Amino acid sequence: MGREKDPHAEITGPDRAYNNGPGVRTVAVPPEQTLVKDLTHTVKETLFSDDPLRPFRDQPKSRKLWLGLQGLFPILEWGKDYRLGKFKGDLIAGLTIASLCIPQDIAYAKLANLLPQYGLYTSFVPPLIYAFMGSSRHIAIGPVAVVSLLLGTLLRKEVDPDKEPEKYLQLAFTATFFAGVTQFALGFLRLGFLIDFLSHAAIVGFMAGAAITIALQQFKGLLGIQKFTKKTDIVSVMRSVWSSAHHGWNWQTIAIGVSFLAFLLLTKYIGKRNKKCFWIPAIAPLFSVIVATFIVYKTRADKKGVQIVKHIRQGVNPPSASKIFFTGDLMVKGLLIGVEAGMVALTEAVAIARTFAAMKDYNIDGNKEMVAIGTMNIVGSMTSCYIATGSFSRSAVNYMAGCNTAVSNIVMSCVVVLTLKVITPLFRYTPNAILAAIIISAVVSLVDIPAMIRIWKIDKFDFLACAGAFFGVVFISVEIGLLIAVAISFAKILLQVTRPRTVVLGKIPGTDIYRNIAQYPKAETIPGVLIIRVDSAIYFSNANYVRERSLRWLADEDERLAKNHQPKIQVLIIEMSPVSDIDTAGIHGLEELHKSLTKRGIQLGLVNPGPVVISKLHASKYSETIGEDRMFLTVADAITRCAPKAEAA
Amino acid sequence: MGREKDPHAEITGPDRAYNNGPGVRTVAVPPEQTLVKDLTHTVKETLFSDDPLRPFRDQPKSRKLWLGLQGLFPILEWGKDYRLGKFKGDLIAGLTIASLCIPQDIAYAKLANLLPQYGLYTSFVPPLIYAFMGSSRHIAIGPVAVVSLLLGTLLRKEVDPDKEPEKYLQLAFTATFFAGVTQFALGFLRLGFLIDFLSHAAIVGFMAGAAITIALQQFKGLLGIQKFTKKTDIVSVMRSVWSSAHHGWNWQTIAIGVSFLAFLLLTKYIGKRNKKCFWIPAIAPLFSVIVATFIVYKTRADKKGVQIVKHIRQGVNPPSASKIFFTGDLMVKGLLIGVEAGMVALTEAVAIARTFAAMKDYNIDGNKEMVAIGTMNIVGSMTSCYIATGSFSRSAVNYMAGCNTAVSNIVMSCVVVLTLKVITPLFRYTPNAILAAIIISAVVSLVDIPAMIRIWKIDKFDFLACAGAFFGVVFISVEIGLLIAVAISFAKILLQVTRPRTVVLGKIPGTDIYRNIAQYPKAETIPGVLIIRVDSAIYFSNANYVRERSLRWLADEDERLAKNHQPKIQVLIIEMSPVSDIDTAGIHGLEELHKSLTKRGIQLGLVNPGPVVISKLHASKYSETIGEDRMFLTVADAITRCAPKAEAA
Repeated sequence: MGREKDPHAEITGPDRAYNNGPGVRTVAVPPEQTLVKDLTHTVKETLFSDDPLRPFRDQPKSRKLWLGLQGLFPILEWGKDYRLGKFKGDLIAGLTIASLCIPQDIAYAKLANLLPQYGLYTSFVPPLIYAFMGSSRHIAIGPVAVVSLLLGTLLRKEVDPDKEPEKYLQLAFTATFFAGVTQFALGFLRLGFLIDFLSHAAIVGFMAGAAITIALQQFKGLLGIQKFTKKTDIVSVMRSVWSSAHHGWNWQTIAIGVSFLAFLLLTKYIGKRNKKCFWIPAIAPLFSVIVATFIVYKTRADKKGVQIVKHIRQGVNPPSASKIFFTGDLMVKGLLIGVEAGMVALTEAVAIARTFAAMKDYNIDGNKEMVAIGTMNIVGSMTSCYIATGSFSRSAVNYMAGCNTAVSNIVMSCVVVLTLKVITPLFRYTPNAILAAIIISAVVSLVDIPAMIRIWKIDKFDFLACAGAFFGVVFISVEIGLLIAVAISFAKILLQVTRPRTVVLGKIPGTDIYRNIAQYPKAETIPGVLIIRVDSAIYFSNANYVRERSLRWLADEDERLAKNHQPKIQVLIIEMSPVSDIDTAGIHGLEELHKSLTKRGIQLGLVNPGPVVISKLHASKYSETIGEDRMFLTVADAITRCAPKAEAA
Repeated sequence: MGREKDPHAEITGPDRAYNNGPGVRTVAVPPEQTLVKDLTHTVKETLFSDDPLRPFRDQPKSRKLWLGLQGLFPILEWGKDYRLGKFKGDLIAGLTIASLCIPQDIAYAKLANLLPQYGLYTSFVPPLIYAFMGSSRHIAIGPVAVVSLLLGTLLRKEVDPDKEPEKYLQLAFTATFFAGVTQFALGFLRLGFLIDFLSHAAIVGFMAGAAITIALQQFKGLLGIQKFTKKTDIVSVMRSVWSSAHHGWNWQTIAIGVSFLAFLLLTKYIGKRNKKCFWIPAIAPLFSVIVATFIVYKTRADKKGVQIVKHIRQGVNPPSASKIFFTGDLMVKGLLIGVEAGMVALTEAVAIARTFAAMKDYNIDGNKEMVAIGTMNIVGSMTSCYIATGSFSRSAVNYMAGCNTAVSNIVMSCVVVLTLKVITPLFRYTPNAILAAIIISAVVSLVDIPAMIRIWKIDKFDFLACAGAFFGVVFISVEIGLLIAVAISFAKILLQVTRPRTVVLGKIPGTDIYRNIAQYPKAETIPGVLIIRVDSAIYFSNANYVRERSLRWLADEDERLAKNHQPKIQVLIIEMSPVSDIDTAGIHGLEELHKSLTKRGIQLGLVNPGPVVISKLHASKYSETIGEDRMFLTVADAITRCAPKAEAA
């Protein structure tokens, strides 16, 4: 290895450079950036970091138009190569998810306090729109349990669905409309990164909490309880269950509910054990509904207190654009609910799309996905749908059933239409207990205990966010849980930017490499020199901390040296490679540090400041204050130059 | 220089290490931290980063108690060594700031819509308390212009001071009380770092905007206008001024006001040009008041429309604890106003304390300062004072007049008491115009144009925060300006954590050093290898970006290589030295990156992951997934091992 062949090698570019004298290499000063260039770069990295316009580069105009259309409607791109071979997989997958979604739709609509047909409507229009505009090949679109629960909880706080069902429905469409607008706007303005602020750990906790909450609420249907709390927290729900224990439970209902729940969980277990049998849990719900409905119809169990669905409106989605509130107080309420539920729905959909895209290594443009999801919800709100998004469980089935493209969503959509047109009257005798069983068996997989264990093992702070969201949802309410999750996530970010890591470096024996002495205990300190690395941009939020922490490292080291009767530190070297940026407060902090050090007769050296940092040090004249010959390319150079007694080889 | 003597040197500690085979050094894996240790460390770095308990270490109990008392009352510490020699400086400084503060107090009280005596009260009790508890030696405590304006604006929104003066006063004391409680709590809970979130740049803009606003409002006093707007924005104020141009101006008032303003500004200029003449602008206001009062008294100009102070209550502060609202709606309003104004006051005081501490190289414990300032405001609220804090201008005078300790504040406090007891009746004929002139001449120095130019030169984003705060205050209102400043500051932090810098490294010819190729254009890339450095902790907020950006670097590089008909990238090396931490989302991102790379047949290597990161990679089994022999101590080691064709020396 040819290290250090020629320390005088001319390594800098055509621009300015600081020359620190013989034997010591220089630090390059990059050319000054114009304001416009600088701004363009920042905007690009922030909003167009995935470089979505790359394919458009150097293309003729007509081609650009075509690419733009393809961008908006990816179906134009993959549709060209669509062959019958692919359709086979999509057909089977589509039929499978349809059989899974129909009973789920009816059940989930209840979570949102809506009539069953609205669940089915939501599995018709949105998946069709998504198939044309979405870029994920594996996602299955429709209503999902958590968003249904969240929407139902938020809406009920404003309007009572039992007393004013029509107003409630209108508010639901209003919320759906604004959820779509929010999603569309986030994607269109390329602000999709905002959803990343809901961390994975928080989502795991939130989902698990929501799943428990949803499952608990199913006691009503499963035990046939008539009088049940409207609250969602575990204490209220369990109180409702116990208080009705002696007179409110219906044994026929329990018999149906519990036996089918056991059956569904068994099929789920089989599906999990043997990946090839994924279709068994997928069709089990529909099978259960058919069998249970037949039993109830034959035994007329509904006369004995078994509650049934009773009526589902036949026919496809009626238009609902005229029902949306576009003015007044209820619009504002709908807007707020829509923003909240829309963000949660988006988080779920994007997480699913990304997961499957990573599995098959294709690209998902998060922002484009949001535009597609937003559009489908806007259109949905005008065609009697409530908020649709990607379903974890159905997407997994879709994937395992071998879907190739979004055509499986179209197939599912067609089956749902057929159901709405023809079969809905048959659901009349479906017992509510079976729907409760289906919901429970669907949401149990949202409690991802291995993921929680993993989070605990890796990062305790993440686990705190996870646990906070979980307990918030279970013991208080869905929104409070969400709020806790977001608050903890933000606290973590603030902690990161206010308390960046600083480490002391030491020389690894026999090399010229300087590493963290906490990690490499054999790394040696240089007598009279303290080397600190700052691992973050130095901004107003941490400038003061960095200054104080550096002085504390100095005090600690001096104390240690005094104990060993060694001379005090005379040189402080700050390794700045990781400092990606610095602002006026940061420079001010460095200036004050330099002042303090000068008073104590300690020299300061900076190692490898990056292009942005060095430009700013230059602009602020700080580089002149500390001396331009105080900036070094490597720690070794700084030591060569500054160490009280040169470390000869 | 003895580089690379023995690459096989045993560099790791007593713990685990990854050995990557001959010729390649290993990465040390630190011992696992227990949860308690980990937590203790985080709490310490966050809340006790300045190590306030260092002097307590290894001390007997009685000594600890004494140290604790000294910590709470620093006067016990410096009081021991207090000598007459020091008192001389403090006496002169105290008299100087007293002569400056008396006219300012009377004027500033008007900004807060309070009677003049409340300004004087506020220069009596709080400075005394601070002298016992504060640790800054140079700060001058009392009412300040910006906080007075902010408090006045916020209070007027709730209660009209002209219609309900008593209720207004009570709310002012309530706000002062809660401002003190907020300040005390922040310090006591060691959350003082929260005030760092108001960046220096934002403060510069806010202060300048507030100064302009305050100066504009003085047109009322300076021109003798009777009917004047209650709003503070420039448009309303200028409209008031013009609309009264023909009938509302009083020429005698203008004559007094403008001539003394010219005099005050002249003395200010002299003081600025010659540092030794600092006392001229310091006593000029009191001198002006005396002369102007005498003129008005002699000419009975008050009969000709010159507005005068009329009456200042004689005697020291009456108790006011019983006036504070501790219940009801007004308590909540007072609380909110107190929190806001208290934070701004705190920011100002801490900034001043830090500035002078850095000049003389002594330590300021920000949190202890907050406790002192909070206490003085709590006590102040019970003794008829409104919010006091450190004054920029008076502290500078205090410093230049040669103060040595907080005794100068005690001296000032005594002079103010004498004034209250004896001289206040003499202020009867003081014209309001002179107070307006004093305010204008005091606030002009808050418009720090050199600082703005500097901010523009160094950091455009900082300048945006500065300009946003400035225009927000001038064109809308003080609070909106503050809100804009905080919002922009937060946006900057969010940008930092969502879009960390990633750079491509190249080898500096003739060395084994790898540096940013954007900064060092002559740095060479290694054929078939792409080296990326990530300059931030990888958290949920940026995990996805880091993954996508790495893939984009890869695509860019492959495109460039394809143009030059060179082979594609086969190895991606990520230099992780700056990655101070990683969370579950970050590890998930790395896993997905690894999956994508594996599909493309590209190898992944990680360089120098820090102790926290490597522990987490280990805990998550990710290190096994990518292979433990894929972690390297330096980029050079990674190249030696992974490069398609080894780069022989």
